[in-house]
Formats: sequence, C-alpha cells, structure tokens
Amino acid sequence: MDRLVHPDLKDVSLAAALHALADPVRLEIIARLVECPCLNASAACGQSTPKSTISNHLNVLRAAGLVETKVEGRERINRLRCMDFDARFPGLLAAVLANKG
Amino acid sequence: MDRLVHPDLKDVSLAAALHALADPVRLEIIARLVECPCLNASAACGQSTPKSTISNHLNVLRAAGLVETKVEGRERINRLRCMDFDARFPGLLAAVLANKG
Repeated sequence: MDRLVHPDLKDVSLAAALHALADPVRLEIIARLVECPCLNASAACGQSTPKSTISNHLNVLRAAGLVETKVEGRERINRLRCMDFDARFPGLLAAVLANKG
Repeated sequence: MDRLVHPDLKDVSLAAALHALADPVRLEIIARLVECPCLNASAACGQSTPKSTISNHLNVLRAAGLVETKVEGRERINRLRCMDFDARFPGLLAAVLANKG
C-alpha cells in the first residue's frame, strides 16, 4: 500500500489549491465529502469511476491539503480537511462550493 | 493577428474558471489588472516574461471569461471582466484575490 502523504497547509500554494479544485470529478468528490464526511474511495467518487482514476484524484486532493485519508481496517476512509484548508485559504472552499451548482 | 475570443460567461464551467486561476503567473496578471485596469500584455505580465508565454496565459484568461482584450491602435489592451465573472461565479474572484497574499 502506498504511503498516504498529508502536507502541512502552509506548504500548499494558492495555485496548487486551485489546481486541485479545477476538475469536475474532484469537485464532485469534495461535494460528496461535504454531504457525507467519511467516505471510502468508491463512495467518494461513484461506482462507475475506475479505481486508478479515483486514486489519482484523491492523491491530488491530499497533496493540496483538501482531503485526509486514514486506513481503517481494510478500508481507506476519506475526510475533508475543511478547518485546515479554511485556516490557510479563508473563504475559498466556501466560494467554490457555493458556485458548484 | 489571431482572433480574440471572449466567451459568454454562461459557457464557462467552474472547473475551467478554477483552472484559469490555478497558475501563479495568471494570478499575478489578474492582481496587476486589479491594481491598474488597462494594461498591455507586457505590463500585465512583467517585461521579463517571453511574449509567447504572456500570450498563452492571456488566451487562457480570455477563454475563462476573466480578461477582455481590445485592439487599440497598435496595442492590445487587457481588462478584467470583473462584473461578468462575478455575476457568473459570485464571490469566487474576491476569495481568490483575498488569498493571493
């Protein structure tokens, strides 16, 4: 199992955070995690999405400090790092989610 | 001279808008256009940036509905489409600029 890297938000640039948000699938993952705070990868992304695709998207979200993934038993459970992200980029995630439609 | 395309904001997706914002050079162009609303390409991006690079970044910003470029005499003058963009994505540009630092 690959190592799960969760950066300190101070090391995440605004451009990197925006890049992580700039994808419809990743926006959908974030919206699902807002609705339901603890999801495994399939539930976060939808059953029809290939596992490698989900994994790549979650890697990008983790690298931007948006998602925390913990191994719980045989599953990886994903959560939004709302408070950390909002402390680093105040109001940004709220503005993005308000415009997701 | 290539054709300057300015999309209707209703045709710009949130992911496309975020992608346009997700670059440090483009963020700098936007910040300069906030400070000084009418700039030619060199002034928008800095004298040291290659012209082709500036042109590519301005193309991305135009395609996302963030920048309007008009030919005035022998120059192309760039302006932010603040009102159009904010009508389509309320609060998004303000949240990004507030976090640019």
